[in-house]
Amino acid sequence: MAPQYAPSLRSRLPLVAFLLETIFLILFVFFVKIEQQHEQSGRESDSKLFISSYAEFQDVHVMIFMGFGFLATFLVRYGFSGSGFNVLLAAMAIQWAVLINGFLLPQRHHRREIHISMKSVIEAELCAASALVAMGAVHGKTNPVQLLLMALVEVTGFVVTQWILRTLLNADPVYSIMLLHVFGALFGVMVSWVLHREGIKPEHEKEKTDRRTGLFAMFGTLFLWMFWPSFNSALVGDYRRERGLKLTVIYGTYLSLAVSVVMAMSVSMLTSSKGKMNMVHVQSSALSGGVAIGVAMTAVHQPWIAMTIGFCAALLSALGYRYMKNHMLFAFECHDTCGVLSVHAIPGILGWFAHLFLRLASSESTIAVQFAVYHICVLLITACMSLVMGTATGLFLKWSIWRPQQDRKCFDDQAFWEFPNLVVHK
Amino acid sequence: MAPQYAPSLRSRLPLVAFLLETIFLILFVFFVKIEQQHEQSGRESDSKLFISSYAEFQDVHVMIFMGFGFLATFLVRYGFSGSGFNVLLAAMAIQWAVLINGFLLPQRHHRREIHISMKSVIEAELCAASALVAMGAVHGKTNPVQLLLMALVEVTGFVVTQWILRTLLNADPVYSIMLLHVFGALFGVMVSWVLHREGIKPEHEKEKTDRRTGLFAMFGTLFLWMFWPSFNSALVGDYRRERGLKLTVIYGTYLSLAVSVVMAMSVSMLTSSKGKMNMVHVQSSALSGGVAIGVAMTAVHQPWIAMTIGFCAALLSALGYRYMKNHMLFAFECHDTCGVLSVHAIPGILGWFAHLFLRLASSESTIAVQFAVYHICVLLITACMSLVMGTATGLFLKWSIWRPQQDRKCFDDQAFWEFPNLVVHK
Amino acid sequence: MAPQYAPSLRSRLPLVAFLLETIFLILFVFFVKIEQQHEQSGRESDSKLFISSYAEFQDVHVMIFMGFGFLATFLVRYGFSGSGFNVLLAAMAIQWAVLINGFLLPQRHHRREIHISMKSVIEAELCAASALVAMGAVHGKTNPVQLLLMALVEVTGFVVTQWILRTLLNADPVYSIMLLHVFGALFGVMVSWVLHREGIKPEHEKEKTDRRTGLFAMFGTLFLWMFWPSFNSALVGDYRRERGLKLTVIYGTYLSLAVSVVMAMSVSMLTSSKGKMNMVHVQSSALSGGVAIGVAMTAVHQPWIAMTIGFCAALLSALGYRYMKNHMLFAFECHDTCGVLSVHAIPGILGWFAHLFLRLASSESTIAVQFAVYHICVLLITACMSLVMGTATGLFLKWSIWRPQQDRKCFDDQAFWEFPNLVVHK
Repeated sequence: MAPQYAPSLRSRLPLVAFLLETIFLILFVFFVKIEQQHEQSGRESDSKLFISSYAEFQDVHVMIFMGFGFLATFLVRYGFSGSGFNVLLAAMAIQWAVLINGFLLPQRHHRREIHISMKSVIEAELCAASALVAMGAVHGKTNPVQLLLMALVEVTGFVVTQWILRTLLNADPVYSIMLLHVFGALFGVMVSWVLHREGIKPEHEKEKTDRRTGLFAMFGTLFLWMFWPSFNSALVGDYRRERGLKLTVIYGTYLSLAVSVVMAMSVSMLTSSKGKMNMVHVQSSALSGGVAIGVAMTAVHQPWIAMTIGFCAALLSALGYRYMKNHMLFAFECHDTCGVLSVHAIPGILGWFAHLFLRLASSESTIAVQFAVYHICVLLITACMSLVMGTATGLFLKWSIWRPQQDRKCFDDQAFWEFPNLVVHK
Repeated sequence: MAPQYAPSLRSRLPLVAFLLETIFLILFVFFVKIEQQHEQSGRESDSKLFISSYAEFQDVHVMIFMGFGFLATFLVRYGFSGSGFNVLLAAMAIQWAVLINGFLLPQRHHRREIHISMKSVIEAELCAASALVAMGAVHGKTNPVQLLLMALVEVTGFVVTQWILRTLLNADPVYSIMLLHVFGALFGVMVSWVLHREGIKPEHEKEKTDRRTGLFAMFGTLFLWMFWPSFNSALVGDYRRERGLKLTVIYGTYLSLAVSVVMAMSVSMLTSSKGKMNMVHVQSSALSGGVAIGVAMTAVHQPWIAMTIGFCAALLSALGYRYMKNHMLFAFECHDTCGVLSVHAIPGILGWFAHLFLRLASSESTIAVQFAVYHICVLLITACMSLVMGTATGLFLKWSIWRPQQDRKCFDDQAFWEFPNLVVHK
Repeated sequence: MAPQYAPSLRSRLPLVAFLLETIFLILFVFFVKIEQQHEQSGRESDSKLFISSYAEFQDVHVMIFMGFGFLATFLVRYGFSGSGFNVLLAAMAIQWAVLINGFLLPQRHHRREIHISMKSVIEAELCAASALVAMGAVHGKTNPVQLLLMALVEVTGFVVTQWILRTLLNADPVYSIMLLHVFGALFGVMVSWVLHREGIKPEHEKEKTDRRTGLFAMFGTLFLWMFWPSFNSALVGDYRRERGLKLTVIYGTYLSLAVSVVMAMSVSMLTSSKGKMNMVHVQSSALSGGVAIGVAMTAVHQPWIAMTIGFCAALLSALGYRYMKNHMLFAFECHDTCGVLSVHAIPGILGWFAHLFLRLASSESTIAVQFAVYHICVLLITACMSLVMGTATGLFLKWSIWRPQQDRKCFDDQAFWEFPNLVVHK
């Protein structure tokens, strides 16, 4: 007879978390300092830069913790885990990303020291975002220990990929970091594929949404949607000192998202046999415009181009969510809880193509060919790293020492959270 | 026998949305550019202005999408539509407002080009806010196609009204745009009056709130309430280059809202026979202080005046919500879902009176009379435009080609949204 | 036979609120002006300062109204009251705090006038935060009239304590205001102790959380958690003109919170017999890192010290929440609804100790002893004032004229809010 309760993680999660936290703490003791340049250099301009950076940081911060957290509450019985594990993972991933970013991608010539600055924190949050995208694919089918380990490996992989791109191909930092959606989505899908469970059928009784969780997820969606212009523009301008580009990115993201939300609703209604919209599809596809423009942004200079990208991204994403998700499950035995393939990978690759075409159209032929080769290499390296590391991580997480929950306990908070005895509803 | 299901919009909404979106896209191709002045002119001050504007824009952005969206989730079965259609409408209305604002109210002498800037986007969002106020009156009784068309007509009407005021009366832009609440509310009420359905009685079974939706609506209310100082001050200071006025507006709005929330709760409890507060009344009336001070703000220079305006606005608004809503339905056959008449129109007119008195008290008699005439004209033109256009829009939307839902399907998400089969609740 | 309904507050709350609001209004008429210095002095630097202050103010504003409000919605039937009364109290407390701060702690030599500025408003919000912490201890067991009076007395007591500290001990303003958590928590616990009801047993049927309210509370928690760096840094830098310290505080708070959320989850799982996390414990303890670092912040200069403080604070807080809450109720007959003793008082005192040790470690012996005496005096004065005023307030609120609800109606919205007739759930 199968055990009635999900296996207890009492001896696993606290141990892993204590251990990791202690290691992080020791590394922080020896290597991390708070940047104090602001006092030495010219006070006026630095202070202004600080104000601007802190506001951007707050916007990204809200997206990571509020946006991603509540986007994952759409499953009817998985709200606590969706939002709670998101905070746990993000908090750990950020600490680790500060460290590994500092080791592999040092900002200036600091003597073996990592200096915390607004920029380093924002970069760490973007790396955490990448891990949260990956988590979207395996939500509900993994326990928090698995998620925690996966997040740390993902962040490591993403930073290593960036290091390769910057070292081998001399890639622009903005450009390499904006592939975070593609990297995260492919990574997550591979993990999910390796961890495939026979018990997760499309009609799994707990993989549903209802009025309540749909609104909570709307919440997360809107926070992501509203602050996405800050997300995309967060790293632009610091590198280039070009205010103009920053503004172009902000307006472009804004318009792209405005179009993509309209298209997401229209396509969702058009592809439904009863002519009704699906809240989960709408929420996911509404964000695709932000993903796509994020990869193409440095090449987009006209509002209508941004809008066209948003238009196409939402179209592809909504169709993908409607038709591809179940197909993936049947054909490839790959279950993708939040549809990250449709929401992050496909729009990301669309944005990559848009970037390519826009650059080709505006360059001379020699430079164009050069750029195309470079551009293709960047995507290939990112995709390969992501697929390989995702598979390896999946195999590592399959180890039964991590005590995954039973199929019946998937998508269910009760495996991990205390609930009081039944509340007497009026 | 009446049909069991609400009519499918599969052939309507996607078509209308695709069509409009394509038209917008084409207009953007030919007319809209991103403003690049920031690179040419002095970098220091512009950069500072940008930081400030972007933060203000974000506050307004949050109010439009989060605030209005969740304020409309108070109906127990209308949460998806309330927040979802809000995003759809606002996203379309903003695109259209950027265009029509650029055509009718060009900012400087741009040669037939519209330049997107922080200011133009903030203005577009304020126009969208006006449409969302109007939508409040017809929530639950219209389908998304009707809402979409109504929103675009409302934005057009509001921009045309502003054009008339600025051209004929040489009105101050801040002053004309702040009548958005009055315009939106009267417009919405007229549409609702023309579209009156016999089936919407005060005891309609679905026009209720519960513990869950009350909290979601609290959410939207608080976002509106908290960021209202930014909303009111968003356009001040850019025109006048007066920081002092901007600060006065911020503090005034803040204090007015603090008083109005206290009064809203007190009056709601006082007028209840059992001495209990009504969540919907409190949420609506708490915001009335922000509406009233928004119209009067440029004439308010003392904190206590702002507080008095908040005091009176909440008093009137709470009484209006408690006693007028049902009276309107019985006497005039006009159903006003969110009570926009009490929340936006009455406090707006109160603010208009406050503005008049404050100016009369501080001016010489000749100037005072001159101002009074001008002030009355502004309100009359706004009200007339609003009433006429609202009636026309209502008649246009009554056309059965738009396939409105049946009376039984009013205030119900199931007419427009897919729901999974019943979830087995624990 | 006991009365079936909770006593009506129709003749109490509106009267008290009208009266207080009128008194505030009259005081504002005579004493409060809006600060207009920004026009006279150098425009450049002031304008920049304004932008920065307004953003900080908004962050604190969101924490007070959204964060504290939704944190208190975790009780399954107390959501309306938790968030609604929070707004009522905070709005009143802020008005009163502006007045009493202005009377007792005038900022400069203003001739008997209180000038509203960003700084004065932020300070008023911090005083309101102190009252909201105190409210956490008595949530659900008091009616809004009692809460309102308690909030005003608490703010008065807190400002008087600050006045004593600044006048007698010449304490630094930042330092004295950051003990707000300790003051508020002890005050609230004493009120709760005096107001003890026999009927509130640990297994009170309504003192529970469920899936829905747990997520709403997650919401409030996250808003507090995300913006805490702004909260702690809000008053630093204005006094000292040191950007460096402000940045150190921001990064320190950020890291401390990141560690404390991880620890809160781990300890919650470790101390559960079934190896499951408790949402309420996690939410509360996740914030303890922010409280602790808030008291110690001016002495923390290394990231790892901040992380260690967050580590210890979450450890103590989670253990305290798990084991101490029921013990307090049995042993001392003191019921602490939100566990403010574990969340605010203990981490606050831990931060105080950390501050002491860090200063002792970095000072010479003579100065160290001097500082230690001063530091101990500050805590003792704060704690004594808090305990004495809390007890007095409790006795005052015990007066039956305030019509407290019956034990059976504790933790229940229905005592104060209108609910529509039962909604027919699908």
